[in-house]
Amino acid sequence: MLMKYRLFTPGPTSVPEATLLELAKPVHHHRTAEFRAMFNEVQSMLQHVYQTKTTVYTITGSGTSAAEAGIVNTIAPGKKVLNVSNGKFAERWASVSKTYGAEVEELKIEYGQHVSAEQIAAKVKGTKYDALILVHSETSTGTVCDLESVSKALRQNSPDTMLIVDGITSIGALPFKMDEWGVDVAITGSQKALMLPPGLGFVALSDRAWAAVDANKARKTFYLDLAKYKKSIADGDTPFTPANTLIDALRVSLAMIKQETIEGVWKRTRLTAEAFRQGVTALGFELFSKQPADSVSAVRYPAGVTDKDFRGHLKNKHNIHIAGGQGSMEGQIFRVNHMGYSDAYDALSVVAATEHALKALGKPVKFGAGVAAAQSVLAGLFEK
Amino acid sequence: MLMKYRLFTPGPTSVPEATLLELAKPVHHHRTAEFRAMFNEVQSMLQHVYQTKTTVYTITGSGTSAAEAGIVNTIAPGKKVLNVSNGKFAERWASVSKTYGAEVEELKIEYGQHVSAEQIAAKVKGTKYDALILVHSETSTGTVCDLESVSKALRQNSPDTMLIVDGITSIGALPFKMDEWGVDVAITGSQKALMLPPGLGFVALSDRAWAAVDANKARKTFYLDLAKYKKSIADGDTPFTPANTLIDALRVSLAMIKQETIEGVWKRTRLTAEAFRQGVTALGFELFSKQPADSVSAVRYPAGVTDKDFRGHLKNKHNIHIAGGQGSMEGQIFRVNHMGYSDAYDALSVVAATEHALKALGKPVKFGAGVAAAQSVLAGLFEK
Repeated sequence: MLMKYRLFTPGPTSVPEATLLELAKPVHHHRTAEFRAMFNEVQSMLQHVYQTKTTVYTITGSGTSAAEAGIVNTIAPGKKVLNVSNGKFAERWASVSKTYGAEVEELKIEYGQHVSAEQIAAKVKGTKYDALILVHSETSTGTVCDLESVSKALRQNSPDTMLIVDGITSIGALPFKMDEWGVDVAITGSQKALMLPPGLGFVALSDRAWAAVDANKARKTFYLDLAKYKKSIADGDTPFTPANTLIDALRVSLAMIKQETIEGVWKRTRLTAEAFRQGVTALGFELFSKQPADSVSAVRYPAGVTDKDFRGHLKNKHNIHIAGGQGSMEGQIFRVNHMGYSDAYDALSVVAATEHALKALGKPVKFGAGVAAAQSVLAGLFEK
Repeated sequence: MLMKYRLFTPGPTSVPEATLLELAKPVHHHRTAEFRAMFNEVQSMLQHVYQTKTTVYTITGSGTSAAEAGIVNTIAPGKKVLNVSNGKFAERWASVSKTYGAEVEELKIEYGQHVSAEQIAAKVKGTKYDALILVHSETSTGTVCDLESVSKALRQNSPDTMLIVDGITSIGALPFKMDEWGVDVAITGSQKALMLPPGLGFVALSDRAWAAVDANKARKTFYLDLAKYKKSIADGDTPFTPANTLIDALRVSLAMIKQETIEGVWKRTRLTAEAFRQGVTALGFELFSKQPADSVSAVRYPAGVTDKDFRGHLKNKHNIHIAGGQGSMEGQIFRVNHMGYSDAYDALSVVAATEHALKALGKPVKFGAGVAAAQSVLAGLFEK
């Protein structure tokens, strides 16, 4: 029986058909006026997504390469870093800082929770940190922080501390205002909200961050040396051969975001996530996160439902691919994407599939109970 | 008038239609049994191309990222490196080694020439180097070395020196036998002979190289830390989200190589390059290189023909994109690719276009003179 493949993992995420077709076009060379003009257009649309006037650099690599670039360039060995560690990705950035000789203090926060403005204020009042590193939306737990308040608390209490933000599952999905919020280093990847396959990372630096790069003369990195990217971008270029066909395709996806407007994307993401949460909650599930992100939902399995059975059923019977938990959360949760090329009926389909899976696994379920709860939220998307 | 776009730059190179169509397929997740099986198949085909039994690691990034990975992991700070510097890319690897604190001695060789086995023997007899870094086929000058003889000379005179080879425009195009020749670190990129868009780099390490990695405990790199890749490959996986759609597409291109056989690819590349060289030489051009590579030809402009006029004519009137010179060679040479998805009539077309360009630029030319010279070589491809 035909069941379409539906990819709802929190990255890679589904890619629009028009973007995929762009990837099938013959390969052109990238040192041309045409590529430069296209890359400039991409640049301007990336700035819209980042809500920034500064340059957003494109790195050929995973999101991790962009995050590492943001850290190694701005944080010299011996610098003091406060790393909010509340999930697998947050912990990874602490490892990166340590690799490069930073003095890292980890502010450990329970999985499923995030740092508050008050916690940041209290920490940075007592100690002078060179940088605060945090993940805006932690993909492993589906947890978001109030970045606007956190950045305000940081600026009021320690104006010179750099704010380094992993926006890999926030930028382009959740409200994110780099300039207004005073974010110094903002990182994302291609395969999340930007509706592209994996292969590109992005990083933007404030003037404060660039001053830190300029002062960090002994940095040991070559491919990820952002000064090289800064020099090249003046010619509309990249320092190393870029994944140029992915950049061509990115233009198509970013044009879709531009047309919907970034505010429209934020609203759609928020309402589809809320619809999904209402749907699964109505079915008796609990969210893993105390501060759920609108980009990715992490849901706890109730007693008697195993990850293997539940995700296996969705995969094998419904051709729906969602993610499980990582590390200590393996087997305890499942995760569903709401970013990027994901709409109202995608959210509804996962809720409906959840009902069918519960039924198949012999659990009590009333068809439509979750779906109706989701629909009552989705109605908000169809109002004028 | 219809003139098809023909991409003959030495990277990015043209990509087969079947591979492009693979890129247009819906995105799937990569942490699946299907992806692992596919990645294993790719692995085995990469080993065929590398002529090795060791693992070939796939890095999401430009070729430079793979070269940096090969260097930073194996060469600890303070180690003594002999870097053969005979072109823009060779010089780049010296910069990478210096970035990471190696003691680098550059063996400077005139552009267009390459190191000989005798030179290497003489150098390594006198001094103990931890590593010899060279570019098998230097893309900026179209120059190849006799790697088999060079590696023999190295092994006979300094058995423990690591041999690090940039094979970015050789592996998959020119005879390259990693295991038989005792290459310790072999690097390539996706957008050359492997018939893929840019976005993936590849690196394989011998046991000797892995021993150097294990001993290099203080290495400062995260994204390019090959120990992480080694750990992941045991599960058919990558340590960071890979550009999985590029890997899917790579399978298609590698299967084409497998079908043609790597020896068949080498022969085709050799004869098309030789045909091109005979063609342009018959038209009065001189090759830039004293040891021309079969992967990319670098040709000197005769007096009275400017790069702007010649390449501009090919681009604007014939829709043929070839490369110019880099650095000090800018304006002096043009470069034409013979790697990957490039056949007999591609070589012939560039020779014919060269004749038309000379005519248009008011130079004496007899139509067919270059083409006939090329054909006499190409005939060798059509013999049984």
